[in-house]
Amino acid sequence: MTAVNESAADLTDTEIFAAHEGGKLGTAVTAPLADPKALSIAYTPGVARVSRAIAEDPALAARYTWAHRLVAVVSDGTAVLGLGDIGPSASLPVMEGKSALFKKFGGLDSIPLVLDTTDVDEIVETLVRLRPSFGAVNLEDISAPRCFELEAKLIEALDCPVMHDDQHGTAIVVLAALRGATTVLDRSPADLRVVVAGAGASGVACANILMAGGVGEVTVLDSRGIVHADRDDLNPIKRELAGRTNASGLRGGVAEALRGADGFLGLSGSTVPEELIATMAPKGIVFALSNPDPEIHPVVAARHAAVVATGRSDFPNQINNVLAFPGVFRGALDAGARRITENMKLAAADAIFQVATDDLAVDRIVPSALDPRVSVEVARAVAAAAAADGVA
Amino acid sequence: MTAVNESAADLTDTEIFAAHEGGKLGTAVTAPLADPKALSIAYTPGVARVSRAIAEDPALAARYTWAHRLVAVVSDGTAVLGLGDIGPSASLPVMEGKSALFKKFGGLDSIPLVLDTTDVDEIVETLVRLRPSFGAVNLEDISAPRCFELEAKLIEALDCPVMHDDQHGTAIVVLAALRGATTVLDRSPADLRVVVAGAGASGVACANILMAGGVGEVTVLDSRGIVHADRDDLNPIKRELAGRTNASGLRGGVAEALRGADGFLGLSGSTVPEELIATMAPKGIVFALSNPDPEIHPVVAARHAAVVATGRSDFPNQINNVLAFPGVFRGALDAGARRITENMKLAAADAIFQVATDDLAVDRIVPSALDPRVSVEVARAVAAAAAADGVA
Repeated sequence: MTAVNESAADLTDTEIFAAHEGGKLGTAVTAPLADPKALSIAYTPGVARVSRAIAEDPALAARYTWAHRLVAVVSDGTAVLGLGDIGPSASLPVMEGKSALFKKFGGLDSIPLVLDTTDVDEIVETLVRLRPSFGAVNLEDISAPRCFELEAKLIEALDCPVMHDDQHGTAIVVLAALRGATTVLDRSPADLRVVVAGAGASGVACANILMAGGVGEVTVLDSRGIVHADRDDLNPIKRELAGRTNASGLRGGVAEALRGADGFLGLSGSTVPEELIATMAPKGIVFALSNPDPEIHPVVAARHAAVVATGRSDFPNQINNVLAFPGVFRGALDAGARRITENMKLAAADAIFQVATDDLAVDRIVPSALDPRVSVEVARAVAAAAAADGVA
Repeated sequence: MTAVNESAADLTDTEIFAAHEGGKLGTAVTAPLADPKALSIAYTPGVARVSRAIAEDPALAARYTWAHRLVAVVSDGTAVLGLGDIGPSASLPVMEGKSALFKKFGGLDSIPLVLDTTDVDEIVETLVRLRPSFGAVNLEDISAPRCFELEAKLIEALDCPVMHDDQHGTAIVVLAALRGATTVLDRSPADLRVVVAGAGASGVACANILMAGGVGEVTVLDSRGIVHADRDDLNPIKRELAGRTNASGLRGGVAEALRGADGFLGLSGSTVPEELIATMAPKGIVFALSNPDPEIHPVVAARHAAVVATGRSDFPNQINNVLAFPGVFRGALDAGARRITENMKLAAADAIFQVATDDLAVDRIVPSALDPRVSVEVARAVAAAAAADGVA
């Protein structure tokens, strides 16, 4: 596990700020405009015939505008990376980066829309008004528990794919990585108890997809300890989760949760001491995903766990959302899906895992974030699942 | 005056629809993403430093995001070309074309935002919420008189350049063309009475800029005849206009307006018979701008008028907004202007006229729509006017 020069600490401010100068996105013209004839085709008077045709048959908008395949990358800036509520303008570099990744890895056009309101209903209302402008919504960096309500309301209000990537993008890649880890360790997901540290956007989604993916038991931790049904300080999301997790009836904190656990999934930004990781069951799996500082250094975790992953590109087994979201949206849009179903997410996780099986090893449980096969396979699997679910 | 093959009638549906397939816009990535290091600079973890810097100093957003120079091309689809209220989705091909022209002629990125609401206050509210996402607003194809209220409210609500192009883009180019015409005819604008046929978005704006540009008298026509102070059927916009135009106190319709007039500016979509054009004063100027069918065929008009212009690319003297809007927004954004002032519009008209003076003739009163000098000169003049007006 050798750190290479792309670790956060090794990046200089000079090279970072230079790369972001002027932003990271531009628009490109995909129709000819070089001569008067081309101009009169792409703009007036020619364009009037296209507009009239769409007015007569609205379905033609999917063919003759970019909106049908355009992803709106939407944030209110309330939970930006590890920086918290820094506002929409400061979140924009992240959203531009996301749009750049959509283009590079999914071949999809997208536009960042950062909103100067944090009111869930106002965000829904704004996107409903803008609906003819885009084909899908990627929600990003929106604080919990508002993000759950916002996503649910948007799915209800819009007849197009909507996904909060901090929840489901992370969850999809975590499930794929867990399948990689159990396969390489020759263990069955059904025999595992996995501790999910963090009950925010990604924690809730990961707990859900792990259970849907066949993990035997999930123990969720929030900042006050194990989420269980006897607690009276749970928000409705956590209360619902308490009813479906922790079959062993554990009480206490991270120490009680980790003792004898088979897996640890860190999504909390806090640290976990080595002596607690040491109390996990043999052949353990540790995904310490907080960025830039994992909950436990992967070299230290590897003294006790059989498989270790982080969110960082400078250690093996990088669990990175970019393995999921470009292909998920590409597949949903390719299929003309009206929404993103649970089966589509599970299909995405399976596709990522299948690419990894080519070359599976303890330090290669997921494909590289730059592997060009991933988004293609994810898109194919997601489109097939959309058709099977009858949402396309 | 020979029609060439880019006239509307000569374009085939096949070539038009082929050029619009999949839309006319895309997004482009302007930062490197090819290797893990580039990825960790453009996205996590590197981007976090840029976001944190903007959170600490919001002025840095102008330097490290694309928003500062991004034009939102906004429509509700209520007055699309000559097609009327065909709705936002059917208007999108026009907005994509507009964005393509912004890129090609102004070097500016822009995103079409088409809105599924026609309520002025809801449109304002939506754009206020999206404010951190863009740097300027080009309003397009919004019906009168709502467009006047919408533009005024947006200018009030947003601290950035806002311009309804159907009003002011047209007006700027009309003023430039009129200066070209009067120069070539050796006439003074102050000696002219110009009939403006149409009291919608472009008619009102043209009447205003012609007066601001020194035209001696303006006579405005709406569908019921000459706009004058005694009429009791005028909306507030026309009533205000009635108080500032028609110094001669004319009454009646198009016949009474044209008799002895020095200029005719057609913006109404209706036709004007040759015998009325024949009643204009000698050395007359006719701008028949309705598309695709001018109010009077330019060959017919030329029997009576000394200078004739249309909106079409297949006749000489094409009066096309593309001569104005790319340079106006480019200049306003280059200068960091908080709004677009009347002086900036007059400066744009003057810059277009100055480019034309290189080669001025009765059939070359404006530069070609494809002349690459125009947007550069317009931008320069607009930025200088912004500085002079203290809005930059």
